[in-house]
Amino acid sequence: MAEALVLAESGLYSTHPNPCVGAVLVKDGSVVGRGAHLQAGKPHAEMFALAEAGHAARGATAYITLEPCSHQGRTPPCADALIAAGVARVVIALRDPNPLVAGRGVERLRAAGVVVEEGCLAAAAEALNPGFLQRMRHGRPWMRLKQAMSLDGRVALANGQSQWLTGAAARADVQQERARASAILVGVGTVLADNPRLAPRLAVAPQRYPVKIVLDTHLRTPPGAALFSTPGAVWICHCQDAPSAAQGALRAAGAELLSCRGTREGLDWQEVMTMLAQREMNDILVEAGPGIAASLFTAGLVDEWLLYVAPLLLGQDARPVLVTGPYVNLAEVPRWSVINTMQLGDDIKWTLRPQER
Amino acid sequence: MAEALVLAESGLYSTHPNPCVGAVLVKDGSVVGRGAHLQAGKPHAEMFALAEAGHAARGATAYITLEPCSHQGRTPPCADALIAAGVARVVIALRDPNPLVAGRGVERLRAAGVVVEEGCLAAAAEALNPGFLQRMRHGRPWMRLKQAMSLDGRVALANGQSQWLTGAAARADVQQERARASAILVGVGTVLADNPRLAPRLAVAPQRYPVKIVLDTHLRTPPGAALFSTPGAVWICHCQDAPSAAQGALRAAGAELLSCRGTREGLDWQEVMTMLAQREMNDILVEAGPGIAASLFTAGLVDEWLLYVAPLLLGQDARPVLVTGPYVNLAEVPRWSVINTMQLGDDIKWTLRPQER
Repeated sequence: MAEALVLAESGLYSTHPNPCVGAVLVKDGSVVGRGAHLQAGKPHAEMFALAEAGHAARGATAYITLEPCSHQGRTPPCADALIAAGVARVVIALRDPNPLVAGRGVERLRAAGVVVEEGCLAAAAEALNPGFLQRMRHGRPWMRLKQAMSLDGRVALANGQSQWLTGAAARADVQQERARASAILVGVGTVLADNPRLAPRLAVAPQRYPVKIVLDTHLRTPPGAALFSTPGAVWICHCQDAPSAAQGALRAAGAELLSCRGTREGLDWQEVMTMLAQREMNDILVEAGPGIAASLFTAGLVDEWLLYVAPLLLGQDARPVLVTGPYVNLAEVPRWSVINTMQLGDDIKWTLRPQER
Repeated sequence: MAEALVLAESGLYSTHPNPCVGAVLVKDGSVVGRGAHLQAGKPHAEMFALAEAGHAARGATAYITLEPCSHQGRTPPCADALIAAGVARVVIALRDPNPLVAGRGVERLRAAGVVVEEGCLAAAAEALNPGFLQRMRHGRPWMRLKQAMSLDGRVALANGQSQWLTGAAARADVQQERARASAILVGVGTVLADNPRLAPRLAVAPQRYPVKIVLDTHLRTPPGAALFSTPGAVWICHCQDAPSAAQGALRAAGAELLSCRGTREGLDWQEVMTMLAQREMNDILVEAGPGIAASLFTAGLVDEWLLYVAPLLLGQDARPVLVTGPYVNLAEVPRWSVINTMQLGDDIKWTLRPQER
C-alpha cells in the first residue's frame, strides 16, 4: 500500500477533478503490476496495474489507495475489471465517498467472491486527496489559505510595501502549490493593487492550468487585467445587481461570470462554496489579502493554512496577517495543529490545520 | 575533529566560565586517547586524552577543538604536556582568543618541533562556544533573547494573559537553555508581574546553576521574591541613585548589587555588558518582556534570538513580540538568518541570528 500511495502522488498535478489513486498487484510476494491515475478520462490506476500484470493477476492481491469504482463513468467500472482478471483479494485504504460509488465497489467485489479488506494506511490516503474527499463528503472545496508574513506576523508595511518578503525557494514552492490546485482565488482588491498573472510559473508547462477565480462583488475587475492573458479559465463571482455594462466587458475579455447572493460583507461564502463544488473544484489556493483571509477565517472555512514566514521584522505599525480578535481569554483563541514545517532557503513554510474544539 | 567536537559538547552544561573543548589522539589510524573539558579547575581535554593514550601518545596526531593553552592557570599549560608526551602533530579548529593564549600555544608547539595545522571544522567549533569567544574577542557576553509568541507575533493578550502559550516539549527545552546559560536575565517588570523562580527545572540536578540577573534601575525587586529561594546567585543591576534602604534589604535577602550608569531609558547597556563580561558571563539567556527585548534589540545587542512559536492566534490587539518600527521601506527592516528550526510538540523553535548588513 505504501508503494501504491507513492504511485498515486504522481497524479498530484494532473488528475483534477478526479482524485489521485495508486494501485499495486502482488502475487506470491512479488509485485506483478503497478498503476496510477494520471488524468481524468484516461484509465484508472487499477487498469494500468491489471494491464502490466496480464495473466499474473489471477489469484493476486490488489492494493488500491481508494475503493475501485462500480459505475460506468468516462471509463468502465474497475471493480468489474478486477473480478474479470481473477484478482483474489483487494486491500483498500479508503472507501470512495463519491455517491456513485460509496461502498458499491466493495459490495460488487464481495458478491463476486473477492476478499476485501479496508482501512490500510487510511490516514495517508486521506492526505492525498483532501479536496476531492471534502467535496464528495461535504459539498465544498478544500480551502488552502496561503500567506507570506514576517516573524512578527505582518504581511506588509503600513504603506503597503510587501514585495519579496520571502526568498526564491519559498516563491518556487508557491508555484508548485498553484500548479496542484483546482483553482487560485483572489479578491478584486488584489487584482486592482497588484495586477497578478495568477498562473503557475514552472520550468515545464503543466498539463492543466488552475482556474483563476476573482471575488468581485461589484465587478470592478478591469477587462485588461493581466490574469486574462495567462493560461487557465477566469471565473468572476459577483453579486446579482452588479453593473451590466461591466458584465458585458468582462465576458468579452474571456471571463465566465458567476452570480451569487450578496451579504453586508461581500458575497455569501456558503453559496460560493456550493457553486465551486458543483463546478468540480477540489482544492482552492486562496491568495487573497488580509481582508478576504480574515473573512474566510471567521466563516470557519480555512481548512489548511500555508504560512511562509520570512525571518524579518516589519514593526508594530505594519499590516497584520489576519485581522482577528480581540480575545479576552486564552481559552478562546484559535489554535492550529502543525501538519508540517519545512525550511525553504531562509524562510519557513508551516502547514497548519485548525484544531478541533 | 568531528569526534573531538562531539566530546566537547559533553561540557555544554558545566564548563562555565571556561569554553567547551574536546580532544582526540590518533596514531596509525586508530584513536588512542579521548578527552573533554568538563569543569573549570578540572583538567583540560588534552590532559584526559594524553592520560588515556599513555605511551601511545608518542608520534600521535592530536585533534583539538581549541588551541591548547600556554599559560599556568588553575591547571598547567597543555601545550607543554603535548610536547612532553611526544605528540608529533596538532590539528586545531580555532585559536583561543583569550589574551593569555592567543597564538602562544601554537607558537610554543611549533618552537618544540610539533607540526601545527589550524582551521579544521572551525565553524562548528565557533558554534560550540559563542559566548566564551565573544567575551574574549569583544569584551561582552553572547546575548540570547528567548521569547514565546503566537503565529501572529504576539506574546500576550491585551489584558496581559500569556501563560502556557507553548506546550510541554517547548517548555522543557527552555529548561535546557537555562541550564547551559551563564546567567538568566530579566527586567524587574517580569519579577513584579510573574515572580519567576528563574532556576532550571531539570530531572537531574545540574552541577552548576546559572546566575539570576535582574535589571532594576530603582531597586523595586521585593526582598521576598521567589528567585531568592532557588539555587544560584542573584545579581541586581541598578542605577547609582537607587534608594539605599532597598539596597540594604536586597543585600540581606542574598542579592549582590551592581551599580551602573543610568540613561533616560534605564541602564546603560554597554556598561552592563562590560560589567557582566568582567564577571566571566559568557552566554546570557534573556527572558525579559517586550520592553527590555525591544531595548536590547535597538541597542544591537541581540546575538541570537530563540523564538518558540505556538500555533495559535492572539489577535491584532494583543501585545507584540517586539516593539519595533515604524519602517517605511522594506530595505531597512531587520532581517535574520535561520540557524536552526525544530519542531517541539505542536510548537516550533526558531534559532535566528541578525543578518549582516
